[in-house]
Amino acid sequence: MSINTFGRVFRVTTWGESHGPALGAIVDGCPPGVALTEDIIQPWLDRRRPGQSRYTTQRREADAVEILSGVFEGRTTGAPISLLIHNTDQRSKDYGDIAFKFRPGHADIAYHLKYGIRDYRGGGRSSARETAARVAAAGVARAALAELVPGLKIRGAMVAMGTRQIDPAAWDWEEVERNPFWCPDARAAAEWATYLDELRQSGNSIGAVIELRAEGVPPGLGAPIYGKLDADIAAALMSINAVKAVEIGDGMKSAALTGVDNADEITMGPEGPVFSSNHAGGVLGGISTGQEIVARFAVKPTSSILQPRRTITITGEETEIVTRGRHDPCVGIRAVPVGEAMLACVLLDHLLLHRAQVGDRAGRIAPG
Amino acid sequence: MSINTFGRVFRVTTWGESHGPALGAIVDGCPPGVALTEDIIQPWLDRRRPGQSRYTTQRREADAVEILSGVFEGRTTGAPISLLIHNTDQRSKDYGDIAFKFRPGHADIAYHLKYGIRDYRGGGRSSARETAARVAAAGVARAALAELVPGLKIRGAMVAMGTRQIDPAAWDWEEVERNPFWCPDARAAAEWATYLDELRQSGNSIGAVIELRAEGVPPGLGAPIYGKLDADIAAALMSINAVKAVEIGDGMKSAALTGVDNADEITMGPEGPVFSSNHAGGVLGGISTGQEIVARFAVKPTSSILQPRRTITITGEETEIVTRGRHDPCVGIRAVPVGEAMLACVLLDHLLLHRAQVGDRAGRIAPG
Amino acid sequence: MSINTFGRVFRVTTWGESHGPALGAIVDGCPPGVALTEDIIQPWLDRRRPGQSRYTTQRREADAVEILSGVFEGRTTGAPISLLIHNTDQRSKDYGDIAFKFRPGHADIAYHLKYGIRDYRGGGRSSARETAARVAAAGVARAALAELVPGLKIRGAMVAMGTRQIDPAAWDWEEVERNPFWCPDARAAAEWATYLDELRQSGNSIGAVIELRAEGVPPGLGAPIYGKLDADIAAALMSINAVKAVEIGDGMKSAALTGVDNADEITMGPEGPVFSSNHAGGVLGGISTGQEIVARFAVKPTSSILQPRRTITITGEETEIVTRGRHDPCVGIRAVPVGEAMLACVLLDHLLLHRAQVGDRAGRIAPG
Amino acid sequence: MSINTFGRVFRVTTWGESHGPALGAIVDGCPPGVALTEDIIQPWLDRRRPGQSRYTTQRREADAVEILSGVFEGRTTGAPISLLIHNTDQRSKDYGDIAFKFRPGHADIAYHLKYGIRDYRGGGRSSARETAARVAAAGVARAALAELVPGLKIRGAMVAMGTRQIDPAAWDWEEVERNPFWCPDARAAAEWATYLDELRQSGNSIGAVIELRAEGVPPGLGAPIYGKLDADIAAALMSINAVKAVEIGDGMKSAALTGVDNADEITMGPEGPVFSSNHAGGVLGGISTGQEIVARFAVKPTSSILQPRRTITITGEETEIVTRGRHDPCVGIRAVPVGEAMLACVLLDHLLLHRAQVGDRAGRIAPG
Repeated sequence: MSINTFGRVFRVTTWGESHGPALGAIVDGCPPGVALTEDIIQPWLDRRRPGQSRYTTQRREADAVEILSGVFEGRTTGAPISLLIHNTDQRSKDYGDIAFKFRPGHADIAYHLKYGIRDYRGGGRSSARETAARVAAAGVARAALAELVPGLKIRGAMVAMGTRQIDPAAWDWEEVERNPFWCPDARAAAEWATYLDELRQSGNSIGAVIELRAEGVPPGLGAPIYGKLDADIAAALMSINAVKAVEIGDGMKSAALTGVDNADEITMGPEGPVFSSNHAGGVLGGISTGQEIVARFAVKPTSSILQPRRTITITGEETEIVTRGRHDPCVGIRAVPVGEAMLACVLLDHLLLHRAQVGDRAGRIAPG
Repeated sequence: MSINTFGRVFRVTTWGESHGPALGAIVDGCPPGVALTEDIIQPWLDRRRPGQSRYTTQRREADAVEILSGVFEGRTTGAPISLLIHNTDQRSKDYGDIAFKFRPGHADIAYHLKYGIRDYRGGGRSSARETAARVAAAGVARAALAELVPGLKIRGAMVAMGTRQIDPAAWDWEEVERNPFWCPDARAAAEWATYLDELRQSGNSIGAVIELRAEGVPPGLGAPIYGKLDADIAAALMSINAVKAVEIGDGMKSAALTGVDNADEITMGPEGPVFSSNHAGGVLGGISTGQEIVARFAVKPTSSILQPRRTITITGEETEIVTRGRHDPCVGIRAVPVGEAMLACVLLDHLLLHRAQVGDRAGRIAPG
Repeated sequence: MSINTFGRVFRVTTWGESHGPALGAIVDGCPPGVALTEDIIQPWLDRRRPGQSRYTTQRREADAVEILSGVFEGRTTGAPISLLIHNTDQRSKDYGDIAFKFRPGHADIAYHLKYGIRDYRGGGRSSARETAARVAAAGVARAALAELVPGLKIRGAMVAMGTRQIDPAAWDWEEVERNPFWCPDARAAAEWATYLDELRQSGNSIGAVIELRAEGVPPGLGAPIYGKLDADIAAALMSINAVKAVEIGDGMKSAALTGVDNADEITMGPEGPVFSSNHAGGVLGGISTGQEIVARFAVKPTSSILQPRRTITITGEETEIVTRGRHDPCVGIRAVPVGEAMLACVLLDHLLLHRAQVGDRAGRIAPG
Repeated sequence: MSINTFGRVFRVTTWGESHGPALGAIVDGCPPGVALTEDIIQPWLDRRRPGQSRYTTQRREADAVEILSGVFEGRTTGAPISLLIHNTDQRSKDYGDIAFKFRPGHADIAYHLKYGIRDYRGGGRSSARETAARVAAAGVARAALAELVPGLKIRGAMVAMGTRQIDPAAWDWEEVERNPFWCPDARAAAEWATYLDELRQSGNSIGAVIELRAEGVPPGLGAPIYGKLDADIAAALMSINAVKAVEIGDGMKSAALTGVDNADEITMGPEGPVFSSNHAGGVLGGISTGQEIVARFAVKPTSSILQPRRTITITGEETEIVTRGRHDPCVGIRAVPVGEAMLACVLLDHLLLHRAQVGDRAGRIAPG
């Protein structure tokens, strides 16, 4: 089966292949009256665009988004919003080896086994190019969130490249915008630059860890038991190309903690409950608590590498493959804006779901 | 909102609170003609049942499942299958402190903030007791899978308790059934027993890591882009109580690998493609490849501990809380059968989804 | 496939067969804090209960509903509400002919062709007994609607029995509660009584038309294009056993009107727009206008009749069948409370959907 | 809320307004390997295109469809298929009165009340222009059905214009393609031509009844209880602009029949069960029986008429309106290909759903 829609009441449907004429997203269920133009969405796409540094694929795409429906005189109407992005840099039509060899670590063998048909053009539907559509859709989500939850801030950063981790104490959000890795630690960023140059020259690649944080999320978002906020975040992030793990709050490290250490104690502040720590990552029982939402995901190293690997052809012969052409030594870099995008969509969806069921009946804990 | 259904064509809806009269599941979309009786489901519930060793909560529940519909003369009819489990050990109606204090790390504050109403009876809907319904539903999924994919084997094991990990080289599936921790390494199991006794006596608790493996999964399962097999597994596992992270294949460790190391090279075996390794955990591009599916999840330490923690009351006063009564020092133990259950449901759902769209058009790679 | 859930955010899942131990419904997505007890739901079931006059099947069911979850101290908690109704009058286990012969007009041949398995017990899942679960679920919907839309009134009446129609000018809602046919016209009711006695004695049956009206529906409900309010009503009513047609407003008669005659002209009243007529039945473009919602549905005559009909056996031999036993000469009678129930569920669902997307941004047309 | 997707595993999402730059559909879940090009879809759009006779709106649209994704080398890949149709005849930007007056019978007042925003451009999203996207999507469904169910034939005809009905005995499918009304009765078609000329000259309009028939539908399609084949057909047809009623088989007339008259008796033919009549319209218990599927729907008269009607402005002043410009005296004419399209999509969806749950376990009734 094919499921190219996510979300429950704020729903995003994406389409398009890496080497087709265009790709796009239909955003359905956006609140009406939200200020929206192409200029509001474009900056998010620009952040994700490849080819902005020597550390990402040299594919050159303008990634200019067009709004084809659902907006009238600069405001959303409540009708579905069709977003279109033309593919402009499809290069040569010669796909070489990959037209008949499977690339280890790539989805091409799985697609072939599933569908019995092979769209060999640079990854087809499984290409990370698809994520441009998500980022465009999230531009709509962000515009709606900006009006509905003014204080909300959704940001991401790369916190590890391979085994090289940032120093959490050095975290600086402004630094994130200054280096090509979305790295919040200037020293780590410098080290990564050297490391990645080496990797690129050797035709190798490396994995990464991305951390997302959302401040100002209202309490009460999440739809237990099977639409928990963290479960929806996990699915959303795991659906991004090359992601192999998702963590909420302390994530895998939670397993190593004792109950005493893990307890986020609660006291009372002037505006409501205050937690002494955030091991939970802002989610308890699948519902937001008002604390910062913290999620992390691991991106595997790019599978397309310039060193030969053993593989087979579509007719079952053993052979070797080297992936030539544009090369992305750390695909995790471009995953940062994509992770932010997915989180924005999930949060808006849950905000709308929450008001569907609960309306003005949510609970409050007020200082005595 | 409330979303108590998961699955797309094989759909499970659960209901019930820890201290209500009963809980249950409605299983919809099961293939017709599957051999099914209560005796076929009960063993799976027995594996999950608490109170079977001193390491889990002493709540005593028979967890006897009744089939109320959807089965006729020992076979499924295609109609929804209603499964009911009575709660028999609800103990005292005196919930003590927890009726008006929030427990740090528990869902009760989040439920209160969401719904403005407090079902203080031992966790209410957010209790891990709900997972009995999932295990019962998965008994149906397993019965169907046994007929549709005879070679399929879905198993789980605990691979770390706190910082104490198993030795992967010592993995023995038979050992898993012999110790109270579902631990595949006898030496680790012995060590964990001592450790957990200490923790229990000090009123503390500890987290755990569970690993799930599914052998014999046909290639082609998964519904890209937003119904990827691994994304659905991630959501299913993250929806289990106290889970904070989900990994597929190498998981978080993927981030530390280079592309050369991470490549699962492909050669040709007598029955089809053979992979030299399984960093991918059996999923590429969200689609199963025929390799073993490997997933892992981290369970945080039980939040109900016998050491006092700071918290607030429902009216906003600061106070302390100690959770008395039945105590589960490592809630991860009971998560093993639950994780298996969720994986079984996801796999059957995707099997049915795959045949919906693709039927007999799947691809094959045959030796030359 | 099997789809036993309807609704989008207020979702009802039903289960159970006519001759199993019980049947029930899971209601998910109900707002929290709604006053709810069994006593609030039971009266709706009592209205639907068979055996209350000589004109409906003599099956005797207490239809006593139990709430197993989702309610605490008389209020909904936001968790799924499990409703259970025991079957008490299952009679003899001798199903006679129907165990191996198909009944013309019945679903049994279709179920057999679909599922390859035969639950011959009195209709199994396809029995109208399933509608008890819908009525129970709608009891929850009505309780929520009573709090959210105080002025809303949902009522139904039978407006034709066979070719015998009511006189619309004689419509009296109080009369509806006084006769066994939910007939709003006393004279027609008397005539129908005589007619139905004759039909019953001859072992024949007759169809009926039911009209539903909902007053006080807020404008703006409906989710264009494929979740239009009238499309959801049509599906909900068509899903009731034996229904063969659904009309909104003027329905089939719309086809015979000219545009001049069909226009519901608009003027301005003290509280907003006033329509000169209601050909539209309260829905324009799939969205409620604030006018009364008017829907009608046709119920075919009961297929179980006491006159012999030609049919085949499950092994393909030609034969005859006479349906003995309990007989329902006009199954449309019992469809009245079921139609009301479906309409209540659809309206609550759309109310919640509307506030999900639109919140407080709906439009208003105020007098100048 | 906004719901612009229909279908369960074969899912169609449409977008676009009547006066925007384009409109389109995303078709998700289509089986892979289906032969598909623009030339295969275009003929269906050509059948629906306005301006082909003096009896439909003179809007001139090429309605040329482009396939932007999901097809590779002339075959579907299993990925979502994006279909785009440019709007070419948007005429003057002067919408005149309709920019601030509501048109009686039109959706504009309902959209305004729902969304609080007014896209006054010729109907915006509620325009019948949206149905072009459905017809394009159904071109994909038809291509898949042609491969999966070779004998299937889905056709529609207009059977009544106003009070003028066809003579069923004169039904001739070839005649349907020869007159501008899709009328199967040549004599009726001639009469309608005269009648419609008169109506057009008087600036009035008229309703119509369309009948759809599907031959060769396999038995077993339908997903009881809330995804019944006839319930899904009812929703699909009711979602078409201006439709006010849907009938299956005998429809409203079923209410007037006795059980004896209504019974479709069953005998045994060489290939399986044979029914003596088809009052049921090919559906029993929500499941196809293998008989011809017969559905009918009523289309109200066009609301845009050239005679003045009373209405109000968006600021609540009373006024009159006359809809000038392009005029469609019987909008039912163009609903014929749209009804066929919806039926095609529903049938393919149910075919895929059926094989999801039942696979090769369906029942057969073979001659003895």
